[in-house]
Amino acid sequence: MAVKIGLVGTGTVGGGCIDIIQKHKDDFLRHFGVDIELARVCSLSPAEAEAHGVGHLFTDNFNNIINDPEIDIVVELIGGTTIARTVVTGALAAGKNVVTANKALMATHGKEVMEAAEAAGKELAFEASVGGGIPIIDPLKHSLIANEITSVMGIVNGTTNYMLTRMADNGLSYEDALHEAQQKGFAEADPTADVGGFDAAAKIAILASIAFNSRVTLDDVFTDGITNISPVDIEAARDMGYVIKLLAIAHRREDGVDVRVHPTMIPTNHQLATVNGVFNAIYVVGDFVGETMFFGEGAGAGAAASAVMGDVLEVARHIQQGVAPIVGCTCTDDLPILPMDELVMRYYLRFSVTDRPGVLETMAGVFARHNISVKSIVQRGRSGAERVDQVVVTHRCRERDIREALEEALALDNVVLDTPSVIRVEE
Amino acid sequence: MAVKIGLVGTGTVGGGCIDIIQKHKDDFLRHFGVDIELARVCSLSPAEAEAHGVGHLFTDNFNNIINDPEIDIVVELIGGTTIARTVVTGALAAGKNVVTANKALMATHGKEVMEAAEAAGKELAFEASVGGGIPIIDPLKHSLIANEITSVMGIVNGTTNYMLTRMADNGLSYEDALHEAQQKGFAEADPTADVGGFDAAAKIAILASIAFNSRVTLDDVFTDGITNISPVDIEAARDMGYVIKLLAIAHRREDGVDVRVHPTMIPTNHQLATVNGVFNAIYVVGDFVGETMFFGEGAGAGAAASAVMGDVLEVARHIQQGVAPIVGCTCTDDLPILPMDELVMRYYLRFSVTDRPGVLETMAGVFARHNISVKSIVQRGRSGAERVDQVVVTHRCRERDIREALEEALALDNVVLDTPSVIRVEE
Repeated sequence: MAVKIGLVGTGTVGGGCIDIIQKHKDDFLRHFGVDIELARVCSLSPAEAEAHGVGHLFTDNFNNIINDPEIDIVVELIGGTTIARTVVTGALAAGKNVVTANKALMATHGKEVMEAAEAAGKELAFEASVGGGIPIIDPLKHSLIANEITSVMGIVNGTTNYMLTRMADNGLSYEDALHEAQQKGFAEADPTADVGGFDAAAKIAILASIAFNSRVTLDDVFTDGITNISPVDIEAARDMGYVIKLLAIAHRREDGVDVRVHPTMIPTNHQLATVNGVFNAIYVVGDFVGETMFFGEGAGAGAAASAVMGDVLEVARHIQQGVAPIVGCTCTDDLPILPMDELVMRYYLRFSVTDRPGVLETMAGVFARHNISVKSIVQRGRSGAERVDQVVVTHRCRERDIREALEEALALDNVVLDTPSVIRVEE
Repeated sequence: MAVKIGLVGTGTVGGGCIDIIQKHKDDFLRHFGVDIELARVCSLSPAEAEAHGVGHLFTDNFNNIINDPEIDIVVELIGGTTIARTVVTGALAAGKNVVTANKALMATHGKEVMEAAEAAGKELAFEASVGGGIPIIDPLKHSLIANEITSVMGIVNGTTNYMLTRMADNGLSYEDALHEAQQKGFAEADPTADVGGFDAAAKIAILASIAFNSRVTLDDVFTDGITNISPVDIEAARDMGYVIKLLAIAHRREDGVDVRVHPTMIPTNHQLATVNGVFNAIYVVGDFVGETMFFGEGAGAGAAASAVMGDVLEVARHIQQGVAPIVGCTCTDDLPILPMDELVMRYYLRFSVTDRPGVLETMAGVFARHNISVKSIVQRGRSGAERVDQVVVTHRCRERDIREALEEALALDNVVLDTPSVIRVEE
């Protein structure tokens, strides 16, 4: 008997899922013995359902799916943490298995929904919540579990990676890169979630939770975006042998979890350095496996739908074989989150300063007062007649000292003229 | 009750497995509820077992493992297709689950052993047979199954990738690169399996079988190695915007499977082009997921042991939960293997020819007679006083025509002085 799927959300990813089912349903049965049937489709738009040829399965009320005794798997693709949360917890409570692509829900209410799944004895799968079509959650929950994972670092936001690539390869300004990304449909009209790093923060919270067997939520992630990055920074990075990427970073340290999202300089020969355009990649280091990386399309209908349907087929396999959930929540430890202020690393800072004698000395004094050992201060690319870019590269120093030095510098009278660019360095 | 493991083979990988169990046994129980115990260790060398602190588990007779009623999972790490085959089929027949890293066995007798597993109702897992620690078989059998996979291309031999990287980055000759690889322990005293492409051929047979749901064996794979690659080729590739990699390639074509291993030119901006040194990577294209790539350490004790133990833990999970094998053989189709002679692509050919008037015309004539449309013939780097390298780049043409042209050219009197270098181009 076919495993029956109820789809909630018929946007880009939902449409992709319908396409996959229509194209490959027979293949799934022949290759894997998995018989799935799209039974019901919920959306606000009957037209979207019609457009995919499933108008006859349409409902505008998700309760018609989560309360349908015939449906085995509910696929939640509406996103957000309000209605989606009701759909997911409601479906689990009603005894359905759930597949979701919802990063915000998993990064914010992951504990609640994983526990709801466990209480219901059902599966909750969410491969598509991170990295689009890239298999990453499944490898972390299966193939790589013989390791203690020490680091996860990802380019997990295609919009910002596209922008940074265009700025690096074609010299576009931040504004032009954003405008182009919007025109191509890679960025929203309000790009805050992408350029502010919040989308990436949700994803690294999910990855860190799985990799370190310890719950990390969105609120735990220090987040800084790319809005202050300019072509001057990219050029300076290149001169130093680095590229700038918006990295989502999680390291297991001796005393806890170091987790953050910010523009980052990585050496040009690092495997993540050549991940360009809208592509995503997640770099994972384990104590036995060493370095690994998972690369692919981080967004788009087909890629995300591939991940969603991979989960659906796996759950369907289990249902057909009468198998209870094999892997549930694996957050068995309770590691502390390290305060950002205590982290120690190297910094690249760029200040737009007044172009007059004494400014260099003033700025050097600020760093000295905060015990920041400066490797170099270089003036670069005059951005106007009366201002100049001052690029400061530090030796390893404490985040708190940097923060306090920045505060002091910004409070100086007529010295720093604009929001500084702060780029942390990963070796 | 603990799931009991019998390990056959205590070499590099087997030693790594023992290390993992000793280091992480408690973590596996705490994080995943998986309780494993190393129960018996078989090897020809009691000293190897002693060195890992498991001398008390030692036996030199594998029958003591496959016939031990207490043992749940037999891990075969001796390699080859003789004793290993007996161990694997014997263990399955005795009702054991099997985990193996044996590429030769899977590429040659895959059908037999998968059927033996199915007949026994037991699991046969072999993630470590391809790509060392890189999760690739598991993603192909789970996360990516919503796709029709159209291509799998891999750098799956670390030895040759190390050599080609040293030749490209540091100008080493083939001989010096091989010598260095041998000194560093990356290449065997007899390097034929690596430099001849046979190791890679076994791996692509396994990957193609899974990706295309159709059995491909080692004998199906056209195989050419890197023994004729010289620094001249690498330099010429660079000038054309390419790098040379030993690629294991499998494409699903309309009329069957195109599967082969040979030195290949790929564009420098291809994601595989920056995979250097002993690292491996497998690039997979699916109809919905688009491009993906899986990167990591292709060899070494830790990496391979990570893959083996990932399989062991997964099988142990299933045993503890009373779950029968969830995924067995997925080769449900029977796609024809396309004859190499019929394939059409672009070629780079380098001939060491006599440096005298008329040779260029003679060679041009050979190509013309075989309907090979030549894009360019360039003379490069004189390799001696009376010989010169003639580099020929063709438009798309048929493999058979190239083969016949090469035969004719080699038969010419005093024209071609050495084995030509033949490099196929992937766009």
